[in-house]
Amino acid sequence: MSISLSPAILQLLKNSDDLMPAIAQDSLSGEVLMLAYVNTESLAHTIDSGYATYFSRSRNQLWKKGETSGHLQKVVSISIDCDGDAILFQVEQEGAACHTGEFTCFHREIHPAQDLNS
Amino acid sequence: MSISLSPAILQLLKNSDDLMPAIAQDSLSGEVLMLAYVNTESLAHTIDSGYATYFSRSRNQLWKKGETSGHLQKVVSISIDCDGDAILFQVEQEGAACHTGEFTCFHREIHPAQDLNS
Repeated sequence: MSISLSPAILQLLKNSDDLMPAIAQDSLSGEVLMLAYVNTESLAHTIDSGYATYFSRSRNQLWKKGETSGHLQKVVSISIDCDGDAILFQVEQEGAACHTGEFTCFHREIHPAQDLNS
Repeated sequence: MSISLSPAILQLLKNSDDLMPAIAQDSLSGEVLMLAYVNTESLAHTIDSGYATYFSRSRNQLWKKGETSGHLQKVVSISIDCDGDAILFQVEQEGAACHTGEFTCFHREIHPAQDLNS
């Protein structure tokens, strides 16, 4: 089955040919889990399946998050930003979002006082 | 004053020449406010000033968020993702993050049932 986005969504996007950054946020805790990229095809698959599907830039193909690891992201809601070039998924994360085993990919905090050269 | 990132931070980044997407999240409510881009210079200015400073792709220059509107983002913490190519700012948002006056730029929600062509 070929699936595509409706005109109603397409008109919200700045450029439907571009890859767009997509943020996954845990719908329960509010934690930002990861940032990956989507194209219109992966967005259509996300909507159709109900699970976050990105476009892997390294593998150059659709990437259903957790398809091999089981760490699926059930999508609760999808929002597009004001200028139509970034996406926010609210998700229920199965297991951990990060391949390291951490719940979120954003687990490395910078401590500014130590880390700036003036 | 010329400022730059320390080696400690630089080594966390996948490619310090790249623009990287940076997510701003409200540190109190957990709301994701916006996504913009940073380079190492804007990241250094963010750390130095304590206020989110992005790199404007349209104007091709540093962009201290809220410098003209007053809608500054005081940075509470900065995290780098596992593969070093995305940034998360936890911020205290002054006023609204979105130029439309909405608190968050992600105020347009897709309703999948209506919006998919199969």
